[in-house]
Amino acid sequence: MLEHLGEFKRTHYCGDVTGKDVGDRVRVAGWVDSTRDHGGVVFVDLRDRTGKVQVVFSPEISEEIVERAKKLRDEFVIAVEGEVRRRPPGTENPKLKTGQVEIYAEKLQILNKSLPLPFPIEDDVKVGEETRLKYRFLDLRRKKMAENIIFRHRLYQITRRVFNEEGFVEIETPYLTKSTPEGARDFLVPSRIYPGKFYALPQSPQLFKQILMVSGFDRYYQIARCFRDEDLRADRQPEFTQIDFEMSFVTERDVMDVAERLLRELYSELLGVEIGEIPVMTYDEAMDRFGTDRPDTRFGLELKEITDIAKECQFKVFRTVAEKGGIVKAINFKGGAKLSRKEIDELTKFVGIYGAKGLAWIKVLSEGLQSPIVKFFSEGEMNRILERLEAEVGDILFFVADKKDVVNQALANLRLKLGKMAGLIDEDKVNVLWVVDFPMFEWNEDENRWEALHHPFTSPKEEDVEILLESPEKVRARAYDMVLNGVEIGGGSIRIHREDIQEKVFKVIGLSDEEAKERFGFLLEALKYGAPPHGGMAFGLDRLCAIMRKEESIRDVIAFPKTQRGQCLLTGAPDTVREEQLEELHIKIESEENEE
Amino acid sequence: MLEHLGEFKRTHYCGDVTGKDVGDRVRVAGWVDSTRDHGGVVFVDLRDRTGKVQVVFSPEISEEIVERAKKLRDEFVIAVEGEVRRRPPGTENPKLKTGQVEIYAEKLQILNKSLPLPFPIEDDVKVGEETRLKYRFLDLRRKKMAENIIFRHRLYQITRRVFNEEGFVEIETPYLTKSTPEGARDFLVPSRIYPGKFYALPQSPQLFKQILMVSGFDRYYQIARCFRDEDLRADRQPEFTQIDFEMSFVTERDVMDVAERLLRELYSELLGVEIGEIPVMTYDEAMDRFGTDRPDTRFGLELKEITDIAKECQFKVFRTVAEKGGIVKAINFKGGAKLSRKEIDELTKFVGIYGAKGLAWIKVLSEGLQSPIVKFFSEGEMNRILERLEAEVGDILFFVADKKDVVNQALANLRLKLGKMAGLIDEDKVNVLWVVDFPMFEWNEDENRWEALHHPFTSPKEEDVEILLESPEKVRARAYDMVLNGVEIGGGSIRIHREDIQEKVFKVIGLSDEEAKERFGFLLEALKYGAPPHGGMAFGLDRLCAIMRKEESIRDVIAFPKTQRGQCLLTGAPDTVREEQLEELHIKIESEENEE
Repeated sequence: MLEHLGEFKRTHYCGDVTGKDVGDRVRVAGWVDSTRDHGGVVFVDLRDRTGKVQVVFSPEISEEIVERAKKLRDEFVIAVEGEVRRRPPGTENPKLKTGQVEIYAEKLQILNKSLPLPFPIEDDVKVGEETRLKYRFLDLRRKKMAENIIFRHRLYQITRRVFNEEGFVEIETPYLTKSTPEGARDFLVPSRIYPGKFYALPQSPQLFKQILMVSGFDRYYQIARCFRDEDLRADRQPEFTQIDFEMSFVTERDVMDVAERLLRELYSELLGVEIGEIPVMTYDEAMDRFGTDRPDTRFGLELKEITDIAKECQFKVFRTVAEKGGIVKAINFKGGAKLSRKEIDELTKFVGIYGAKGLAWIKVLSEGLQSPIVKFFSEGEMNRILERLEAEVGDILFFVADKKDVVNQALANLRLKLGKMAGLIDEDKVNVLWVVDFPMFEWNEDENRWEALHHPFTSPKEEDVEILLESPEKVRARAYDMVLNGVEIGGGSIRIHREDIQEKVFKVIGLSDEEAKERFGFLLEALKYGAPPHGGMAFGLDRLCAIMRKEESIRDVIAFPKTQRGQCLLTGAPDTVREEQLEELHIKIESEENEE
Repeated sequence: MLEHLGEFKRTHYCGDVTGKDVGDRVRVAGWVDSTRDHGGVVFVDLRDRTGKVQVVFSPEISEEIVERAKKLRDEFVIAVEGEVRRRPPGTENPKLKTGQVEIYAEKLQILNKSLPLPFPIEDDVKVGEETRLKYRFLDLRRKKMAENIIFRHRLYQITRRVFNEEGFVEIETPYLTKSTPEGARDFLVPSRIYPGKFYALPQSPQLFKQILMVSGFDRYYQIARCFRDEDLRADRQPEFTQIDFEMSFVTERDVMDVAERLLRELYSELLGVEIGEIPVMTYDEAMDRFGTDRPDTRFGLELKEITDIAKECQFKVFRTVAEKGGIVKAINFKGGAKLSRKEIDELTKFVGIYGAKGLAWIKVLSEGLQSPIVKFFSEGEMNRILERLEAEVGDILFFVADKKDVVNQALANLRLKLGKMAGLIDEDKVNVLWVVDFPMFEWNEDENRWEALHHPFTSPKEEDVEILLESPEKVRARAYDMVLNGVEIGGGSIRIHREDIQEKVFKVIGLSDEEAKERFGFLLEALKYGAPPHGGMAFGLDRLCAIMRKEESIRDVIAFPKTQRGQCLLTGAPDTVREEQLEELHIKIESEENEE
């Protein structure tokens, strides 16, 4: 039943056959999207990447072709040759670009069959993601998914055009490299030639791009795959794609200018959205007002600190926290006084996820304040609180008192939740923001040491270099993050280009000279031979693409993603391998099941 | 001594300061390429990616700046501000684009120092490759190396432009995938989440691009990294880059047309070379005339078969071989009769590398034939041989008699060697050729089974599908290789799109149904749901780039290559890792040294 393609030459994509082709003989090929038999005439919607066109198999042409067309089923692959005719009046489909015409088939080649599908090729499929991932070859036939992938293709091209126009050189860096664990866990690749040694897959091209600056390339970029063996909470992938770039002889603003141009051109060309001035906010301000360094500024509900008032009040919970160095912050949820007790309990549970031990609240009603805590405050104190929070009748105020981190995390997340609940977030808004002046280090409680907030190659501010060793907590980094609608889509920094400063930073984060040399010796070595001042940035391409396409998950903009547990349901990776393969790599599986 | 960059803004790259800028104030930055002190005036050649410019530190500006300039050493990194002046007559350097001018420095910032270099930044360095790879950041400062990398950058851009214009969609495929060993060895990546399971790094995106065709993307491309854990003989890298593409509803010619357009545009734009008609040669003809399926057709010295004569002659060595199914072939090395006995002995040793047990020869001298074997032939036989080889006075004829493979390999390599010896190869010639009609299978002596010559997803010729199982040796593949100056730079095929044929091919190469399902189940599954006819190709980007740049080694067109033993001398990869890392991955090193 199946035929060979033979010398068939397509003249048109399905979606491109229109009125201009009427009277012409065309050849198209694609998938049977649907078939209908109307009184002995078979109508087929034929689909390819570009769209659909109606093909008519009519006894007017030949009985034989009609008989063969009757055997077509959904997703059969066919090639058709025939004449383009205008559809009879009243049968046009204005929704389709090809809706004015139909192809009267004179030749039909059935190139392949298809089993009945596990789910239909439609935009809103009702199957679980597991099935979609297992049958990814079908899932990607869905218009929305195909468009996501083609959108991503266009995003690549615009990105490269911007960097090319800005004089950047595209350079590939290795994927088989050295394990330098700092931050996430490395994926390892056992070496066959060197028993007991391993390559690592790069978490980013960071060190290589710095080396390229030392080499004098001046401006480098790459759309690079990165690998992190993290626990795949939230929407992460073990391999992901970065738009990575680096520049020499620059300050923060130079790097940010290139990043802004890229974002502007992507939004303008792909979505027709013009991005205005991009404001710059300090880390301290972001934490203060939003409790997070990636604030979603599309809506208000800002956090207000009332630690000063809490310190003096009679409410013991607040006062104790304030006296112990904690803080008290509040959100005025405008118009939220109608929240039920049950809803408030749920919000209390919600902030508990982030470690908050309670969620105090005050409803501002026309008959007065309603709250379990209001009695602990003097009228003066309460008035100062209401004033600071700009409270009006109909509002509800929420308070969290705890260690600074807990308060900020709890309220930042509560703010987002309330914003969504109240429909305050305009999903069509594109709100971009720079966050700068990050602390250079943060204290790692578990390991009892300072660690780099960004990474240890980030340059401290020039004026803070002197206090690096004495007061690491005060040192600010020359780092900048780009935040889009509350999501960090990119980040970077001016790097350290001087060996002496790099050595000091390694010291602060607790690396001995030996360890530093063992792990990053090649970088330290490179800094000895004329390293220029340099800085750069990386965008998370998957995330950016998902946001631009308004997809919830980055998996919907990756052709072959893995599950949250790191599996490829299409191929079955990871999988067992043959014993000989392991022997050649000089490794053995170490697990209890194996020790029979 | 070192200064901060501060708000320095470069106005020009070094190489861009020319006569048009005379009288202007410019700011440049870069590396001190050399310094000269001429009677209290310091001249510095300042270098960046674009070239060099002369900077003058003169007491006419200030004594202080001269004193500071005297401290500059090679490869110090500096920023300079000053006025562009025309050089005094007689001091111009016509070899430099900037040779008409010099910058009178008014400000000097010393941004970084440099230790004395292990080798000078010059095109012809005399250090070993090991040192160059260890100090790759210095090696890449050399003009030739930097130009190689920038050339490669341009090659990427032209490649993508061609594919974009041809309607291809760029799609990324996974690097963490499933091990499907067929051909080379896989690199493995142990999974932390699934003890005892492994990802594999892809040897190519082959299966994913076929899946993308099943998904309906119609035309896919990607500049993709590939990984093969092979013994790194010759000029191979464990990770290398392919220009990979695939198309649906096409025949061989469609794919070849796209490949030809790409190669033409690359040569035309990057080298100004116009590639003419690209001839197509069958595999049989290539083996027959050149003994190899990647013939260098820039010169003659073709192989001639004389098995028919050998069969009848009295020379036992030839006759026995011919009677046992072997072959006898010869090369006429025109004008080679002057070769000494020692030179002939060396050539005999050389063909021995390829398994030839001897190298018979006949010198055609004006006084007659000189040869140890001529006495075994009748005059008629000898005349036929001389005629067939178009022998003239001054020639030497070389003969190898053995199994077909050995004869072809030995003489193909001998031909190349003789061609080089005699200077017959015009290195400026660009000779491109398609080789087609490959056998589908070749017999693997070691494993006693048929294996796919290309890969098992290659489609057999339509007319050979019927004999797949009965006569695998006769089946030809729909494969095509592109050969450039005797190097295979790309290859591809029309793929199998029908499940029944794919299953048969798996059967021929000895995969049981179970094994086929276990390894390639997802492909077989995809073929069940409407797979279109499709085919594609991949170019070896590193090799292509090296040939275009006339580099002997692909390592010279890769920013951070590995040695032939798979080491990165810059970073020290592969390296040992911490015990905890292995524990997390549920693996253990298995080696004798470890079993103390």
